[in-house]
Amino acid sequence: MDQNTLNNAVEAGRASAQEYAGLHYHRLLEAVDGHPRGSVVLPGGRVLPGYPSIARIQSLEAGLHRQFVAPFRAEEKIDGFNVRILREGDAVYAFSRGGFVCPFATDRVPDFVDTTIFEAEPDLILCAEIAGPDTPYLEGSSAQVERDVELFVFDMMRRDRPGFLPHAEREALERAHRLPHAQRHGRFSPQDVDALRELVLKLDARSVEGLVLKEEDGDRRAKYVTGRSCINDIRVCGNQLLDLPPEYFTHRLMRLAIFLTEHARTGDPEIERELGRAFLEGVGDAVQSGRETGHVGHPYRCRFRARANAERFIQHMRATGGRHVRIDPASPQPETGEHAGYWRVDLERRFDRMTGTLASALRGDSQFD
Amino acid sequence: MDQNTLNNAVEAGRASAQEYAGLHYHRLLEAVDGHPRGSVVLPGGRVLPGYPSIARIQSLEAGLHRQFVAPFRAEEKIDGFNVRILREGDAVYAFSRGGFVCPFATDRVPDFVDTTIFEAEPDLILCAEIAGPDTPYLEGSSAQVERDVELFVFDMMRRDRPGFLPHAEREALERAHRLPHAQRHGRFSPQDVDALRELVLKLDARSVEGLVLKEEDGDRRAKYVTGRSCINDIRVCGNQLLDLPPEYFTHRLMRLAIFLTEHARTGDPEIERELGRAFLEGVGDAVQSGRETGHVGHPYRCRFRARANAERFIQHMRATGGRHVRIDPASPQPETGEHAGYWRVDLERRFDRMTGTLASALRGDSQFD
Repeated sequence: MDQNTLNNAVEAGRASAQEYAGLHYHRLLEAVDGHPRGSVVLPGGRVLPGYPSIARIQSLEAGLHRQFVAPFRAEEKIDGFNVRILREGDAVYAFSRGGFVCPFATDRVPDFVDTTIFEAEPDLILCAEIAGPDTPYLEGSSAQVERDVELFVFDMMRRDRPGFLPHAEREALERAHRLPHAQRHGRFSPQDVDALRELVLKLDARSVEGLVLKEEDGDRRAKYVTGRSCINDIRVCGNQLLDLPPEYFTHRLMRLAIFLTEHARTGDPEIERELGRAFLEGVGDAVQSGRETGHVGHPYRCRFRARANAERFIQHMRATGGRHVRIDPASPQPETGEHAGYWRVDLERRFDRMTGTLASALRGDSQFD
Repeated sequence: MDQNTLNNAVEAGRASAQEYAGLHYHRLLEAVDGHPRGSVVLPGGRVLPGYPSIARIQSLEAGLHRQFVAPFRAEEKIDGFNVRILREGDAVYAFSRGGFVCPFATDRVPDFVDTTIFEAEPDLILCAEIAGPDTPYLEGSSAQVERDVELFVFDMMRRDRPGFLPHAEREALERAHRLPHAQRHGRFSPQDVDALRELVLKLDARSVEGLVLKEEDGDRRAKYVTGRSCINDIRVCGNQLLDLPPEYFTHRLMRLAIFLTEHARTGDPEIERELGRAFLEGVGDAVQSGRETGHVGHPYRCRFRARANAERFIQHMRATGGRHVRIDPASPQPETGEHAGYWRVDLERRFDRMTGTLASALRGDSQFD
């Protein structure tokens, strides 16, 4: 992107200047010059493309035919957060969906990726999901990760070029550089509804989030999630019932009902109980916490390889997280035991509306509605 | 209310002129001259006061002490719609909460109230709940009514005077005129938390909506609802998941969780299953209906004593219900069998967002969210 275009975008409020550990870059708040929101303009005007939204289909039977005309690959969807990883100068950075350098992901990338890949492929961008119980952003974990965090490469791009690398090229690079990646379930055509249904039910039983379907010779993609992932989301976010947009819950209920109809699982008392329990445990935890501590929140912990990155993360959260993020003042602390060598940060997000509403209800205030 | 005040209110958009079967009146869209929204200005400027909102308490233990300092009566809350009944000229009318004459309630009042009461008490206003499976407004029924509709007087007022009649006077009039009323559960003081808890659990087991607590010598009131009423509401409105404000659901989940904590019922698998089933049955019915008919809606039926009132009701619904209310073109039809002598009206409300979202999902459209 030329300097003039970038300057105009900054002036129009469509791009914003950022700095991370000496790296100066701009993130796009809106589309600029054909580059989508979330794209990053690096030194020299080179562009890290934004990661596009993936369309959701709610019915396999109708959706496959409508969204695909050619063969596609099915990969496991990972319930984590999306980063784009590249090398710039001598360092490797991980950028969030919104176009910020993520200090946490940037710190942890070398645990999972042999970064010499960027010597052979200096223009390469790895699109990866980071998932696990110990992230600073996610309330729940992922079925594929038992402890700490893991990283799964699921797409590749090149700088300044729109679109993704073809399937075969990505697979070859993953193999050559032993990159961890989302589990692949093979090649399907839009007619293979029954085979995909069977696969989805197996993933559902394993509590996997769902599938991402990727056109083999093109950029067309679609996602399809399992019923159990809807219930899991409700469970882990029930204590934020009034703080999340209420559609968070109503949309997941819709998806679950459509899923159960499509897979002939309506009326299953076990699923009914799981759903009711998901809501009641989540909201009940909030009520309990409101009674006992006077506030409702969620604790997060995460680990860093370098103390300096932990400090950068803490500064970033203090600058952007607002008053409802509280960093444990003892952080960062050196870990011991199985995580020895890492620096641990503990934080809490407070849910202001849950806290306020419960405090009012539990002290006996009356409400008009 | 004097004519000048009323004229100014109409000009300011705070009052609106209405007509029903020759009765000309104004309803207040906002407070005017100390009269709340929903009040009605009758011929001669006499005022039917609006029925005030009743405050909700979410915790018995904390709420009783905070909201009451004197003894109060506990009455069963009826899950119906609220009307105010009076005589004007030679006729008896029932007004809705918003200040419209309700053609349905007006028609049916004589089935339940001996209207000669208004000869002895011409200024009297009966505040009543109409409930049952066969109303034109309610998706569910009420635990207290098995068939058709019933009427329960729960408060009395007098024209032009603010406030309610004292408990003893109301009870005497109810007895003298054999008026049907909400079940009364006696007199309590703010210390009687345990007795009220026990009563509430009995009501919960009967699926009763809850209690209205009324200060014996004053106008202070509070309502407290049962956990099961939250689940019932979710069940009967699940097929409107995207058409109701999403807070309809999130607030009921909050209330249920607080109720279960207060009554030490958290973790009950039977309640978990009931809640999950309530959601899944409601939304599942919508999915089923979307698949089979291409739309989602709810059927209502109601009965009228007089054909002319049925016709007035149909006109009223056509004028105010918008395109999503569809009256069965065969209505009104004479009933046969146990309801012989009545005129029956069938209608359907269509839920536009559920219909549209399901149609899109089931034909395989992709969605970005």
